[in-house]
Amino acid sequence: MTINIYDDINRLETTFRKTTEYAAVEKAVTEVKADEQALALFKSFRDLQMTLQQKQMQGEEISGEELEYAQKTAQLAQSNPKIEQMLQAEMALSGLIEEVNRVLMKPVQSLYEGI
Amino acid sequence: MTINIYDDINRLETTFRKTTEYAAVEKAVTEVKADEQALALFKSFRDLQMTLQQKQMQGEEISGEELEYAQKTAQLAQSNPKIEQMLQAEMALSGLIEEVNRVLMKPVQSLYEGI
Ligand SMILES: [Ca+2]
Ligand SMILES: [Ca+2]
Repeated sequence: MTINIYDDINRLETTFRKTTEYAAVEKAVTEVKADEQALALFKSFRDLQMTLQQKQMQGEEISGEELEYAQKTAQLAQSNPKIEQMLQAEMALSGLIEEVNRVLMKPVQSLYEGI
Repeated sequence: MTINIYDDINRLETTFRKTTEYAAVEKAVTEVKADEQALALFKSFRDLQMTLQQKQMQGEEISGEELEYAQKTAQLAQSNPKIEQMLQAEMALSGLIEEVNRVLMKPVQSLYEGI
């Protein structure tokens, strides 16, 4: 690993934290944190998601009831405007990170062309 | 999205293609491509993996026999020194991309601290 790439990664990270996408997530998280109701709703949504993900990774079965409850919790969370705003801001920021991955993967994929 | 971040992403990509990790994958792929036996072995390994991944994504069942055959194909492929070299080089390069993701995800995760 050359030393240079860390300079470029760190420069990218500095710019990343200055994007409007990053600022939007920061603002949206602050607003959820300041709203007791939104915060409680988001926490229960996220904790439930984590529990289900863990079950899935461990190959445990997820019952229809559990799934239905999870969907209702997700719907409830998303019906809160502050949480909805935060999830949308997250998605836009994830899009930026995905773009970085696409740009880096492209030359790697081209190495495998013809295989 | 600010225009700046694309400059930084492109600069990172240019440096990325100059790393020893990238050069190692390029060299390893060239060597596999030039070796008929290694190439055929790698293709059958990769095609089988893709088929199984697709089945998994579509929720189709993968039989014990299929799994056993996939494991044997993987073992056979990895016992080829040129393929083994290529897979190790790939892993090292993936490590670089993962590092980029870690650096970018860190400030995002810190936004959620206390939630
Ligand atoms: Ca409220
Ligand atoms: Ca040979």
